[in-house]
Amino acid sequence: MGHSPLDDLVAAVTGRAADGVDGIANGQARPDVTREGRTGVPEIIYASGKDFDQVLALTSTFVERTGRAIVSRIDDTDARCLIDRLSSYQAQHEPRARMLVLRRPGFRPPDGGRVGIITAGTSDLPAATEAQVVAREMGCVVTLVSDVGVAGIHRLFEPLRAMLDSGVDAIVVAAGMDGALPSVVSGLVDVPVIGLPTSTGYGVGGKGIAALLSMLQTCAPGLSVVNVDNGVGAGATAALVANRVARARRT
Amino acid sequence: MGHSPLDDLVAAVTGRAADGVDGIANGQARPDVTREGRTGVPEIIYASGKDFDQVLALTSTFVERTGRAIVSRIDDTDARCLIDRLSSYQAQHEPRARMLVLRRPGFRPPDGGRVGIITAGTSDLPAATEAQVVAREMGCVVTLVSDVGVAGIHRLFEPLRAMLDSGVDAIVVAAGMDGALPSVVSGLVDVPVIGLPTSTGYGVGGKGIAALLSMLQTCAPGLSVVNVDNGVGAGATAALVANRVARARRT
Amino acid sequence: MGHSPLDDLVAAVTGRAADGVDGIANGQARPDVTREGRTGVPEIIYASGKDFDQVLALTSTFVERTGRAIVSRIDDTDARCLIDRLSSYQAQHEPRARMLVLRRPGFRPPDGGRVGIITAGTSDLPAATEAQVVAREMGCVVTLVSDVGVAGIHRLFEPLRAMLDSGVDAIVVAAGMDGALPSVVSGLVDVPVIGLPTSTGYGVGGKGIAALLSMLQTCAPGLSVVNVDNGVGAGATAALVANRVARARRT
Amino acid sequence: MGHSPLDDLVAAVTGRAADGVDGIANGQARPDVTREGRTGVPEIIYASGKDFDQVLALTSTFVERTGRAIVSRIDDTDARCLIDRLSSYQAQHEPRARMLVLRRPGFRPPDGGRVGIITAGTSDLPAATEAQVVAREMGCVVTLVSDVGVAGIHRLFEPLRAMLDSGVDAIVVAAGMDGALPSVVSGLVDVPVIGLPTSTGYGVGGKGIAALLSMLQTCAPGLSVVNVDNGVGAGATAALVANRVARARRT
Amino acid sequence: MGHSPLDDLVAAVTGRAADGVDGIANGQARPDVTREGRTGVPEIIYASGKDFDQVLALTSTFVERTGRAIVSRIDDTDARCLIDRLSSYQAQHEPRARMLVLRRPGFRPPDGGRVGIITAGTSDLPAATEAQVVAREMGCVVTLVSDVGVAGIHRLFEPLRAMLDSGVDAIVVAAGMDGALPSVVSGLVDVPVIGLPTSTGYGVGGKGIAALLSMLQTCAPGLSVVNVDNGVGAGATAALVANRVARARRT
Amino acid sequence: MGHSPLDDLVAAVTGRAADGVDGIANGQARPDVTREGRTGVPEIIYASGKDFDQVLALTSTFVERTGRAIVSRIDDTDARCLIDRLSSYQAQHEPRARMLVLRRPGFRPPDGGRVGIITAGTSDLPAATEAQVVAREMGCVVTLVSDVGVAGIHRLFEPLRAMLDSGVDAIVVAAGMDGALPSVVSGLVDVPVIGLPTSTGYGVGGKGIAALLSMLQTCAPGLSVVNVDNGVGAGATAALVANRVARARRT
Amino acid sequence: MGHSPLDDLVAAVTGRAADGVDGIANGQARPDVTREGRTGVPEIIYASGKDFDQVLALTSTFVERTGRAIVSRIDDTDARCLIDRLSSYQAQHEPRARMLVLRRPGFRPPDGGRVGIITAGTSDLPAATEAQVVAREMGCVVTLVSDVGVAGIHRLFEPLRAMLDSGVDAIVVAAGMDGALPSVVSGLVDVPVIGLPTSTGYGVGGKGIAALLSMLQTCAPGLSVVNVDNGVGAGATAALVANRVARARRT
Amino acid sequence: MGHSPLDDLVAAVTGRAADGVDGIANGQARPDVTREGRTGVPEIIYASGKDFDQVLALTSTFVERTGRAIVSRIDDTDARCLIDRLSSYQAQHEPRARMLVLRRPGFRPPDGGRVGIITAGTSDLPAATEAQVVAREMGCVVTLVSDVGVAGIHRLFEPLRAMLDSGVDAIVVAAGMDGALPSVVSGLVDVPVIGLPTSTGYGVGGKGIAALLSMLQTCAPGLSVVNVDNGVGAGATAALVANRVARARRT
Repeated sequence: MGHSPLDDLVAAVTGRAADGVDGIANGQARPDVTREGRTGVPEIIYASGKDFDQVLALTSTFVERTGRAIVSRIDDTDARCLIDRLSSYQAQHEPRARMLVLRRPGFRPPDGGRVGIITAGTSDLPAATEAQVVAREMGCVVTLVSDVGVAGIHRLFEPLRAMLDSGVDAIVVAAGMDGALPSVVSGLVDVPVIGLPTSTGYGVGGKGIAALLSMLQTCAPGLSVVNVDNGVGAGATAALVANRVARARRT
Repeated sequence: MGHSPLDDLVAAVTGRAADGVDGIANGQARPDVTREGRTGVPEIIYASGKDFDQVLALTSTFVERTGRAIVSRIDDTDARCLIDRLSSYQAQHEPRARMLVLRRPGFRPPDGGRVGIITAGTSDLPAATEAQVVAREMGCVVTLVSDVGVAGIHRLFEPLRAMLDSGVDAIVVAAGMDGALPSVVSGLVDVPVIGLPTSTGYGVGGKGIAALLSMLQTCAPGLSVVNVDNGVGAGATAALVANRVARARRT
Repeated sequence: MGHSPLDDLVAAVTGRAADGVDGIANGQARPDVTREGRTGVPEIIYASGKDFDQVLALTSTFVERTGRAIVSRIDDTDARCLIDRLSSYQAQHEPRARMLVLRRPGFRPPDGGRVGIITAGTSDLPAATEAQVVAREMGCVVTLVSDVGVAGIHRLFEPLRAMLDSGVDAIVVAAGMDGALPSVVSGLVDVPVIGLPTSTGYGVGGKGIAALLSMLQTCAPGLSVVNVDNGVGAGATAALVANRVARARRT
Repeated sequence: MGHSPLDDLVAAVTGRAADGVDGIANGQARPDVTREGRTGVPEIIYASGKDFDQVLALTSTFVERTGRAIVSRIDDTDARCLIDRLSSYQAQHEPRARMLVLRRPGFRPPDGGRVGIITAGTSDLPAATEAQVVAREMGCVVTLVSDVGVAGIHRLFEPLRAMLDSGVDAIVVAAGMDGALPSVVSGLVDVPVIGLPTSTGYGVGGKGIAALLSMLQTCAPGLSVVNVDNGVGAGATAALVANRVARARRT
Repeated sequence: MGHSPLDDLVAAVTGRAADGVDGIANGQARPDVTREGRTGVPEIIYASGKDFDQVLALTSTFVERTGRAIVSRIDDTDARCLIDRLSSYQAQHEPRARMLVLRRPGFRPPDGGRVGIITAGTSDLPAATEAQVVAREMGCVVTLVSDVGVAGIHRLFEPLRAMLDSGVDAIVVAAGMDGALPSVVSGLVDVPVIGLPTSTGYGVGGKGIAALLSMLQTCAPGLSVVNVDNGVGAGATAALVANRVARARRT
Repeated sequence: MGHSPLDDLVAAVTGRAADGVDGIANGQARPDVTREGRTGVPEIIYASGKDFDQVLALTSTFVERTGRAIVSRIDDTDARCLIDRLSSYQAQHEPRARMLVLRRPGFRPPDGGRVGIITAGTSDLPAATEAQVVAREMGCVVTLVSDVGVAGIHRLFEPLRAMLDSGVDAIVVAAGMDGALPSVVSGLVDVPVIGLPTSTGYGVGGKGIAALLSMLQTCAPGLSVVNVDNGVGAGATAALVANRVARARRT
Repeated sequence: MGHSPLDDLVAAVTGRAADGVDGIANGQARPDVTREGRTGVPEIIYASGKDFDQVLALTSTFVERTGRAIVSRIDDTDARCLIDRLSSYQAQHEPRARMLVLRRPGFRPPDGGRVGIITAGTSDLPAATEAQVVAREMGCVVTLVSDVGVAGIHRLFEPLRAMLDSGVDAIVVAAGMDGALPSVVSGLVDVPVIGLPTSTGYGVGGKGIAALLSMLQTCAPGLSVVNVDNGVGAGATAALVANRVARARRT
Repeated sequence: MGHSPLDDLVAAVTGRAADGVDGIANGQARPDVTREGRTGVPEIIYASGKDFDQVLALTSTFVERTGRAIVSRIDDTDARCLIDRLSSYQAQHEPRARMLVLRRPGFRPPDGGRVGIITAGTSDLPAATEAQVVAREMGCVVTLVSDVGVAGIHRLFEPLRAMLDSGVDAIVVAAGMDGALPSVVSGLVDVPVIGLPTSTGYGVGGKGIAALLSMLQTCAPGLSVVNVDNGVGAGATAALVANRVARARRT
């Protein structure tokens, strides 16, 4: 963690070629391999819309240079191909979340904090799992509780109490459709809550739009949000918070 | 109530001039004075966008022919002028809801049912009061509970239990901003819930849009909605339901 | 029906494990098996976006614990698989509405009220049938009249008169495109009307958006709405109303 | 009417300065004084957003060169000032529609056809009157029927029958809120209908948006629309149609 | 054509069963077989979203009772099946416009007027052809000119002049993307113009939205519009106008 | 801070009246005076849309029971009246941010953490100051840097370096118009960033909409957002994070 | 012009305080006084939403350090106050465009190129004049032609020919409502065209939205756009192009 | 280039058949073969939504009459078929950008200027390549730099400096998601920048909408934009500018 924020910038502007600003493969990608040191969040390769060769080149680069590659929005076929092509690495594949992690044997994320994830329904699990994987790769211990939405709000309280008792320092609340759960949770706890709207629901306000707007309009301050289905963003934010608290506790 | 639905239609189509289809004053308004008999909901004069003379003419017509006139969206000045000009009638004015009711002395609404109204915040009171006045004029006994939104959801349960115990047959839940409360209530009770979004809140999804969308996307079936700030519609719907149940109980 | 509203809540908050708050199968779903007792609306399993195993686990749980499972938005293949896998139960499948109901032999819904359903066109039948199935499973007798939209409004009056004569206590009116029919009906009858916009129509305002907006903007108070294609919500709301009136009549 | 379509174009492109392409006053406006001859619709000066001097200059130009000036969206004060400043002309002012017409004494519009205008409510009268003035200035005989919206649809039939019997060749139907009336009318008559949405209504779909969308989504072919509150466009379209039929009848 | 507007209504309301209000086949469709007599526009069967059996039943009903059936939005396979199943009728199939017309041998549309259709690009031809078929079936002689959009506006003038010289009484102008052509044409001619936006174009404002909005905002009065890709509506409107003028000329 | 999360809920559901669930004044407001203990964020009285008497009653209640009242969105006149009426308390008024804080003499917020606030332009200062006041009242030391937007991005680096060196644990970045700055900052630092879009900018995407969307679409994970102009939410979130880290450091 | 792009960046990142990154007055504004040297576009002070003191401080700073200050969106009163307070400078005030320019006596913009500006109507003049002032201050000779919109397109050709003959190297085309003119112009000329939508027009697509979308959807490549009413952006873009060509011609 | 702007117009209006206004093949397309001479931008055949025969006819016409045909949005299969069918021409196919260029042997574009293209990510390459091909076909030398988005902004400066040093006269900046890069670049350089939003990103503001809005709201004047994924428009605009400068340099 000796690599400090803004160092890359100085190096780049003054012409000292920072590691990571050179292109790869076809000269078109410029993988930001120093991102984790600079921002605390590892680069996550967004596979959607890239062809397999681009994903393969980026994945190899990251796993070689940093010991690990994290790929999001990758379909099953491509994930299995990647695992085959990079078989000397250890793979962890979460098909439901379309996440794939490859690690050099022996690689271990840094020690991090404690993060809680709550979902309103089972349909929110893909986005919630994306958040879970990212937080885990940032070193967090993650507790996930699902299907406690407001249509039967009595289901919420017991698991929430247990989660608070376990000492989480940030909570991601994933909800689609009405998006009401994050506001309810944020009004009950003293932990920063990150609202993660999910693309469930049909009709007007469907695909997560009502959920996002309802969270943006929350009457419970302390709730911030990420975009619909952006589990990566929610997990990274929660982990940044939790890791910071954990680091403070350790010092 | 001898006037049954569709009678007006037959009369009109076959050329027998039904009461109420002739114009008034300047020949431009055709007050629907048989609406209450036909639909169970009295005509409500929407003052916004009409000039004072139009409102006065309509109000006189209704109070003369039906014994009562209900005016919505009327500003204070116009309301006071109307009261002055029609001083032989009894006036009930709710400035916060911009509602004015004029009644012939001795007028009494029919006996109706029991309606509950809940608001998430105090800013929802104008729309909630509009609903309250309409339900009351349709003969309902109305219980109103306010400021029990999800940012402090513990405030909800005691008043809600009391409302259910009192025997309401329909509940209007008014909420702006996140619009989460109607879904929570609808998941807790066995009474039809009418969501009434209100135009509170700023930014994206503000002015009641997020609230409306969140209610439309509710995960708690049994919740139907009306448009933002449409207290008239919410009150009329709740009263139609409650009155129907009450009538059934009486028979 | 001895299970009263808010009981689940007290049990949950005070730590007495209410039936239904424990997870199933993979520990991720928390089926709300007490919902029908609490809210009068049975849990309806929303199959869209869930994988077959999730749907199967939920369906088994409900049919075992409550005697019946209702599944919505299920495609033909999955429906047939479910029927095969749970062949000891009686199946009722409505492919057009993508609804499947499984019942333990001898299961009978409670006695309910009378609901009417009207559609503007034949394209509105899927959503209307979804509403019909839900109301029927809530014990209602349902009358359905279709294809009487405003492009040929003379087709409406005779069937509407017959429906009113049969004693319906709530009417669902399904319409896509211009969404004009619910406002016309609501101005003609003294029964609560639930507008059910459907996703027919193309171009600007298509997929039910114009229909929903037109219903929200209705000039005929007494009309409340649910979201586009939300037959479940429309049917549940109408049945809650009709059942409440029927119960009142019986007492 | 000897000036035929496309003549202006040929003159302009080949450099023969057509009357009307030279600027006026401050050199910034290029009044299209040959428009009526070319398109059958007189130039209508849109006052909103122009300062008084611009409106005065344009009005003088038109009344001088063509014998008449038609000004829309002009507030009362400016209208009265214009009348004062151009007092040698005959003024006809419709404050409700914010229309002002000035005519050289003796000016007479050409003989035109018969146009019908129907409004759903009295709030639709400003836009409807704008249409009425434009059609009248294009030589039409105009019949206006108001306040026959679908909330009490029995009010519609008698006036509609009378209007058809009078021989109208085009009907403008103005409606705000749900915008349902134009579709109903278009399904009942064999005359082209022009839908004129008006900016009445609040909440989502308010200010005429739901009305416009509902008309665009009409299930009754033969209905075309203009923009919200565009009485000028509706009146001009209806008059173009009616005048064309009238001219054909005369030949 | 002895069947006059509103007759159906009187018959229906007074209980005299008008021809066409009874259901067919499965009791769900109520074909409006008297529409052409009442409104001048034949019923057009909208195949999209209906299953083949529904389309077949409706098509048979219309072709048997009225001598012709017009089907829109029908895909190639279904069209060919229909032709096979109803092989005793004469078929005219326009795959590009997804229109199918079946006629009893000897059927002849009534004599109508003259309609012009102009397209901005070749991509507008499907919608334009839909309009062409409808106008033709309403008895019109149709002139179609394509690919004269504003990116090369010099291409417009010669064909437009020819079209005006041929005596058209209404012009449909189809345009996608910028939707500029209808405003240009409407400013050049003295014939009513119907703007037909088409779903060409991508990005923000794509799929015809910018085109529709631009036409609604036209600065050239005399232009009315129908929804995106609504060739049926545009053709019917233009034909209603042209037929009315033609009828007037003949008398 | 002995009051722990969920305690209020248990008390409310089991009928033991928790402090704060009783109404005040006119019986309509239910001030949530235990919110700060429960959630770490003090109740903030939203003055907009409330009348002066409501604001006064709420303010008195809070300042009396908790030693401080924080009022947001209060105009100058009302703020000065409040200060007058409650002159025994110490007032701190930030007119630019429309914030007013009243404190009982001797009141001191708890010790908190370090928060940084950055603005893209000077127009973002009202929202940024709202965030600053809230964070300060939650006990934070706040560093504010303004006018370093991306149109001249060289202005950013020096102040950002100083801010990081001072040890902030959360950064709020306020930006309107293009909303680009939060993404740039989030890609440079290892601190959680809260994007605060502001309602600057006109035209399409104006009033903060483009800014909000751009932040939601950030390519720099670790950025979460609040709604447009929601300085209260941004400040509360940042302070919750920073306070949690500070508390960890102290233990 | 010795100050080259990216120099400011290097200076800032490496800690050498570039001129212009220090704050002024109240420490909150960081005027970018080197912008003109770096980007070729002078800083333009956006007065809207700033209080008078902020505008005064910024204006003084710029006029002192660079010899000129350009203020946009300034109302008449503030403009006159500024002129009074900075009376030693030469003022040029364009109230219609809400632009104010102050210059040190003897200040002269650099020599630039030739820019043309065309408007569809006279209502587009405020935005067009804003563009004109900015281009002029960047040293351009500007030709402005107004009121040649597509409703009477014959008015366009002669002035356009003259403008091309005068040698303009970039053309700004301002249009509201239908926004059709920029596409027509772009299809006729070989000069880059910048579309400037203006906020004229009402109803759906009003306030410049339809105009902007129509320009974005143009079928005439070579047209790029700026936001609604963004005369500053249009003028700056056109001047950057024209100045670059002029500079090339001079070398 | 002897064919000058407006010549086509004069020829068309005066009836002298300009080359290119006659239809081809099926009489429906009117290829604008003189566009390049008139506007400096060659006609680009938009294949999407056209059937193969239409594309083939247009491609043959252009390659025969002008020596080259440029086809955009063509899928791989159709491109390969075209190459086969027109095998006497030289083909250049860019599958990623869905562009195909066919040239008569010996065809050479005119000499043009220098254009730079920058992308924020590798997902922006399809749109960027579309721009590259168009600029190249207009004779430009194009430098493309990719994957330098603001999440790691240090990657931008070195390649940007090199691009400026190479003498580009216009820069296209392609970005999806947050769309922040064009504003950053426009604030750093003195060259006109064309923002090219791309359809990357999901959730609210996805598919390039946030990117487009952020660019329209840029705080860096000198940035104009084209629609999402409109590489053709961006490339044509940049090339028009660069070619104009180059031509000026040569004279």
